[in-house]
Amino acid sequence: MHFDYSTKVNDLLGRVRSFMEDYVYPNESLYEEQLNNQTSRFEQVPPIIEELKQKAKKEELWNLFLPEATYGAGLTNLEYAPLCEEMGRSLIGPEVFNCNAPDTGNMEVLARFGSDAQKEQWLIPLLNGEIRSCFSMTEPDVASSDATNIEARIERDGDEYVLNGRKWWSSGAGDPRCKVAIFMGKTNPDAPRHKQQSMILVPLDTPGVKINRMLPVFGYDHAPHGHAEIDFENVRVPADHIILGEGRGFEIAQGRLGPGRIHHCMRLIGAAERALDDLCKRVQTRVAFHKPLAEQGVVREWIANSRIEIEQARLLTLKAAYMMDTVGNKEAKSEIAMIKVVAPQMALNVIDRAIQAHGGAGVSDDFTLAAQWANSRTLRLADGPDEVHRRQIAKLELSKHQ
Amino acid sequence: MHFDYSTKVNDLLGRVRSFMEDYVYPNESLYEEQLNNQTSRFEQVPPIIEELKQKAKKEELWNLFLPEATYGAGLTNLEYAPLCEEMGRSLIGPEVFNCNAPDTGNMEVLARFGSDAQKEQWLIPLLNGEIRSCFSMTEPDVASSDATNIEARIERDGDEYVLNGRKWWSSGAGDPRCKVAIFMGKTNPDAPRHKQQSMILVPLDTPGVKINRMLPVFGYDHAPHGHAEIDFENVRVPADHIILGEGRGFEIAQGRLGPGRIHHCMRLIGAAERALDDLCKRVQTRVAFHKPLAEQGVVREWIANSRIEIEQARLLTLKAAYMMDTVGNKEAKSEIAMIKVVAPQMALNVIDRAIQAHGGAGVSDDFTLAAQWANSRTLRLADGPDEVHRRQIAKLELSKHQ
Amino acid sequence: MHFDYSTKVNDLLGRVRSFMEDYVYPNESLYEEQLNNQTSRFEQVPPIIEELKQKAKKEELWNLFLPEATYGAGLTNLEYAPLCEEMGRSLIGPEVFNCNAPDTGNMEVLARFGSDAQKEQWLIPLLNGEIRSCFSMTEPDVASSDATNIEARIERDGDEYVLNGRKWWSSGAGDPRCKVAIFMGKTNPDAPRHKQQSMILVPLDTPGVKINRMLPVFGYDHAPHGHAEIDFENVRVPADHIILGEGRGFEIAQGRLGPGRIHHCMRLIGAAERALDDLCKRVQTRVAFHKPLAEQGVVREWIANSRIEIEQARLLTLKAAYMMDTVGNKEAKSEIAMIKVVAPQMALNVIDRAIQAHGGAGVSDDFTLAAQWANSRTLRLADGPDEVHRRQIAKLELSKHQ
Amino acid sequence: MHFDYSTKVNDLLGRVRSFMEDYVYPNESLYEEQLNNQTSRFEQVPPIIEELKQKAKKEELWNLFLPEATYGAGLTNLEYAPLCEEMGRSLIGPEVFNCNAPDTGNMEVLARFGSDAQKEQWLIPLLNGEIRSCFSMTEPDVASSDATNIEARIERDGDEYVLNGRKWWSSGAGDPRCKVAIFMGKTNPDAPRHKQQSMILVPLDTPGVKINRMLPVFGYDHAPHGHAEIDFENVRVPADHIILGEGRGFEIAQGRLGPGRIHHCMRLIGAAERALDDLCKRVQTRVAFHKPLAEQGVVREWIANSRIEIEQARLLTLKAAYMMDTVGNKEAKSEIAMIKVVAPQMALNVIDRAIQAHGGAGVSDDFTLAAQWANSRTLRLADGPDEVHRRQIAKLELSKHQ
Repeated sequence: MHFDYSTKVNDLLGRVRSFMEDYVYPNESLYEEQLNNQTSRFEQVPPIIEELKQKAKKEELWNLFLPEATYGAGLTNLEYAPLCEEMGRSLIGPEVFNCNAPDTGNMEVLARFGSDAQKEQWLIPLLNGEIRSCFSMTEPDVASSDATNIEARIERDGDEYVLNGRKWWSSGAGDPRCKVAIFMGKTNPDAPRHKQQSMILVPLDTPGVKINRMLPVFGYDHAPHGHAEIDFENVRVPADHIILGEGRGFEIAQGRLGPGRIHHCMRLIGAAERALDDLCKRVQTRVAFHKPLAEQGVVREWIANSRIEIEQARLLTLKAAYMMDTVGNKEAKSEIAMIKVVAPQMALNVIDRAIQAHGGAGVSDDFTLAAQWANSRTLRLADGPDEVHRRQIAKLELSKHQ
Repeated sequence: MHFDYSTKVNDLLGRVRSFMEDYVYPNESLYEEQLNNQTSRFEQVPPIIEELKQKAKKEELWNLFLPEATYGAGLTNLEYAPLCEEMGRSLIGPEVFNCNAPDTGNMEVLARFGSDAQKEQWLIPLLNGEIRSCFSMTEPDVASSDATNIEARIERDGDEYVLNGRKWWSSGAGDPRCKVAIFMGKTNPDAPRHKQQSMILVPLDTPGVKINRMLPVFGYDHAPHGHAEIDFENVRVPADHIILGEGRGFEIAQGRLGPGRIHHCMRLIGAAERALDDLCKRVQTRVAFHKPLAEQGVVREWIANSRIEIEQARLLTLKAAYMMDTVGNKEAKSEIAMIKVVAPQMALNVIDRAIQAHGGAGVSDDFTLAAQWANSRTLRLADGPDEVHRRQIAKLELSKHQ
Repeated sequence: MHFDYSTKVNDLLGRVRSFMEDYVYPNESLYEEQLNNQTSRFEQVPPIIEELKQKAKKEELWNLFLPEATYGAGLTNLEYAPLCEEMGRSLIGPEVFNCNAPDTGNMEVLARFGSDAQKEQWLIPLLNGEIRSCFSMTEPDVASSDATNIEARIERDGDEYVLNGRKWWSSGAGDPRCKVAIFMGKTNPDAPRHKQQSMILVPLDTPGVKINRMLPVFGYDHAPHGHAEIDFENVRVPADHIILGEGRGFEIAQGRLGPGRIHHCMRLIGAAERALDDLCKRVQTRVAFHKPLAEQGVVREWIANSRIEIEQARLLTLKAAYMMDTVGNKEAKSEIAMIKVVAPQMALNVIDRAIQAHGGAGVSDDFTLAAQWANSRTLRLADGPDEVHRRQIAKLELSKHQ
Repeated sequence: MHFDYSTKVNDLLGRVRSFMEDYVYPNESLYEEQLNNQTSRFEQVPPIIEELKQKAKKEELWNLFLPEATYGAGLTNLEYAPLCEEMGRSLIGPEVFNCNAPDTGNMEVLARFGSDAQKEQWLIPLLNGEIRSCFSMTEPDVASSDATNIEARIERDGDEYVLNGRKWWSSGAGDPRCKVAIFMGKTNPDAPRHKQQSMILVPLDTPGVKINRMLPVFGYDHAPHGHAEIDFENVRVPADHIILGEGRGFEIAQGRLGPGRIHHCMRLIGAAERALDDLCKRVQTRVAFHKPLAEQGVVREWIANSRIEIEQARLLTLKAAYMMDTVGNKEAKSEIAMIKVVAPQMALNVIDRAIQAHGGAGVSDDFTLAAQWANSRTLRLADGPDEVHRRQIAKLELSKHQ
């Protein structure tokens, strides 16, 4: 057991950190400005993001998330963790390095389970950052925390599948670059519960795909990315667009969600670190009741508790990553569930304290605190609500004592 | 000691409740729709709001907040509490009854401390719901939680005062109906700390008043009301626009903030009650893992804890109101500070649980939960952050044992 | 609605408070000393307690808990609340006023449901403070939080009932003055679930009653009172010792537990108030890092939060008492459940902060803090664990929305 | 970075675990029984403990705590951590392996800073488990959380030092095997604050050393070990009993407290693990409301949260140990402070949940839960209260942003 990053990781980390400092943070407000000045928040993309992507690609800080060396950087989860954390400090960071959800998860699915044709058509442009993608699983009409509830239908009709269903929280579907969805639905409603669902690729320009509306998150539209509610009405796609085959949906979801969850956690740690930085800076420059806020005991308690919570969450994330690398996602499922519970709440705690220390500035857009808070809050729901993860942890724990 | 509302209150409560059910809730989405379809979110007001105001006025559910019978309904704080709570269940509720902040606080100031001319010019149209007003106290450049930090200047020059300073969180200033600000600043920088500040009325069309920007709250613009950052540059107003006289700013703030704070708390209780209603309804209609969410023990714990927290917060609010009515705001200052700490956090807890139970729907705008959460969060800062109120409570407590 | 105690209550409160200050607090350490110097902690009673009882009786501060004016003081629950709170500030307080559990609950049962003979034999000496009693319900072998699990048997045999079963947490059974138990067990195992159990009076000197051991509570033996594990082996009592009749056990338990629970809560509020007093005094006399602890912001936060939690718990307790008085225990069941959840946790919070402020002194017996903490902790379990009360609250809440 | 224990550690861990299972757990109740049957709880030692010590010594599971290979096992802190955790599962575990506080800390002081004569006289018998020792630092009359407050005097008089002062929480001083104290006091009251104090060895049979009383901890006497209040009145010890020299007290304390704190944390993790085991077993065997407690969602949440908190605390402890081993105690001071805040609270949380799940059994002595709770609670105070550690963490954090 030891706790130091390898030389390789430290080198990459230094490079990502420099890139963030040199290019990402300084352009956050330009990004906002370009977005706010567009005629439509969803039909255009702020040009700065594509400039930054080119720069990151050139510096070979690109696709770092993908463990498969054929397509990506070939880093282990443990190696990627500190890099991902660093990117997560900025809400525009992950996209700059082509490491943003849900594209990362979709690329993983394609890299691991896609056919050669699927890889050619979708994986390559995604890896190149030329297109984007969304994941259409969750449905408004059922409690999707229990994935067996998913009711959308995928029915075979000759050489095609016919898709029907209403999906929401298809994040990224608002982006004009978003070209394809991975759609989950039932092909085999009479099969055993975990064999009913399949996943299939749906080009977004297929007739019958209709974006009803973009969902806000605590008032944020997250444009141009956005979160779409999409109706799929008699959408026909070629049969070879199915991934792995009928009834494999759960299996793919399982493979997809492990890395997806841990990436979210890494990013949350970065967001929390930045909030703590902001907090520490702010309280040393504001004076109330005759002394800097930094000298208030309560503020110091916030800082100490924040540092403590961040450290613990990071260590647990790193251990989960290590286990995914060494014993596999399945053996690591309790650890993955644990960090998925820990990291969002930790980030919410730290950011909330930073907001409180900033007063009115904290809830506005003068800092990224409020936006990061809203984002973190959704992660107590996305990819499974806390309660489902806790059930899983408890079940595994109880099974040790039966 | 007894715990029942009087017949008078129960009657009023029944009428307010019916009005909410008949007119307010059913028009919330129309309000949003009108707002979203306006060419500008800030330069126009959704027509439905003025229709509802007329209806409420006609039913004599109007200015219920104002204890002075000459101008308002003449209810005590204790009598008003359950009515205010009811209005607070909807974000558009308070305005419908002409009981919305910051106008209520400003009307109280004018009713209690205004000259006859000031009443004529500003109080009457405010009471009639013809105009709106804002309160310009907080400043971006100093920790305004310590009001002695306020740096804006109000300088006498002949028959006029000249105002200079940057203010923010001037809520309501975005509304085209907003015609006047109560501005706080230093007239007497060399006087003892609590005698330096004054308050003065500033018509918003006075030259030199410039709205820099509208501040978002967790992504919400709160249009058309909004929260403005305003620059006051050599703004000249007639000397008789000062309220009470030079150096009386703190005294007025004290008088203004007591009722203002408790009104916020009453509304938060209403918001929490509605969130708990939403929660209870939702969990009885969604099934996961073979049973309704309502049968999950964890969900039941949320419900029980929410009911417990709401009850306690309400009782403390009512007691604070009772003390304000019987022994005065000054003697009730510990109780006021206590509810100001309790109510926002209680509302945040309850609403957060409701959000979690709603999944993705909870963070979007399908329910009022996310918007109410954001609103409640600001109330841990507005009118004094929690930490300042706790200091006050502790100081009073310690003084009993010296 | 109003929040002042009546003149009658204020008068009684003043008298109880003076009695506590003049006689109870000054004799707490003498009580401990006498107890520690006895040859047996359980077979003798510190003489000071009987002296204090005589004094309280003489001052007519006696049996204040009993609403029935025939036997007790005839106070309502609401009137008794502040008096009971005051007594609860000292661990020996309640007994001094003949208001200590479980005797109070047992006296209520006898006063409301006992036959004339039962009243004559047991109620009168209990009211006179001549004997004590215990309540034998909970069993070590089943989860007694679900009272239908109780397995002890009460079988009719001619003019007698024969009792068999193991009971524990028969509090007070260690005391040499304890002469009778109210025993709960099944007379009708085949009846509907809530008609199976009965309650019967068992003189403790009946053959077959055997105290196995006294149970400690976090290291405290609570001598001479104590908490007994008792075996009942073929214990024969006359048939007329049954209370109300066969199958009425649940009905009696229901009647007994409402007041019992609220009395516990009142006492806990007193315990918390005293802890807060101790805290406020201590921190003004100890200096660390160049200033009194009272000037540390974190300590001030403890004080403020303690005051806030106490106020809210007291108001909820008073409201529950008011409802018991006005609409009855059954209608007040949600309120009773709520305070039963709130008060112990509140007391634990406040006392824990006081302990922390006292350092090592806090966990020792230099103050009553540690002992009160342990006592409060048992009240998250006794008379139903928190979780069962929350279930009840949630069930009632959900039923409003079905 | 990796997260597996070495083969060496796994081997030792297996042996310690087997020893615990074979000899320690099965003898816990015998230990209690022997203690309770002694004529004096403090003047005798339950014989089983010495038997177990001989067995552990023979199996070379002895002095594992001491990194110095000359005297102890020569394990790093990181290697010792999982072993110490295992021992901490039983309250009698650490002593069995000669790894119990405060002897471990005292042995470290002597091994690192003692003279040859001091080692010969005290270290060797301590390492052999022949004698025990105590640490006399804390004083009842001052807030000892700020060690500069320590007021005891150590004055040179010829070839001797004369000691005066009242100390308390001299843990272990109740044990008849306890032969020596390390005493802290001021030799140089006029020196700079951190050079005023010295440490000196005091044989407990020196005239003038008087144990006033043994302090209980939440009702526990912790006999025969115990926590003594000791008066030192004109106690004369030879001048060569001073450790390192005059004015070095703080320096030694610093060196002593790092390892001492982390050992406490390791043991707390073990205590928490055992409580979680107890909890998981209990809830699978008790039925309430028609199903095992283990199927209640709230209970599952307790289990999940317990597992999450334990994992995080363990990782942070291991990282702190790693840093102590690699960069030294001084560089690791933030990490040491963090675990010292985290581990006791974590243990309290986990144990409290286990208590709640056990009902009345949880607060009694049927399980070790209540005793472990009380022990854990003192560790939020011992070796520095949480608040002092948080101050330290915040100070280091703020210094990064100055």
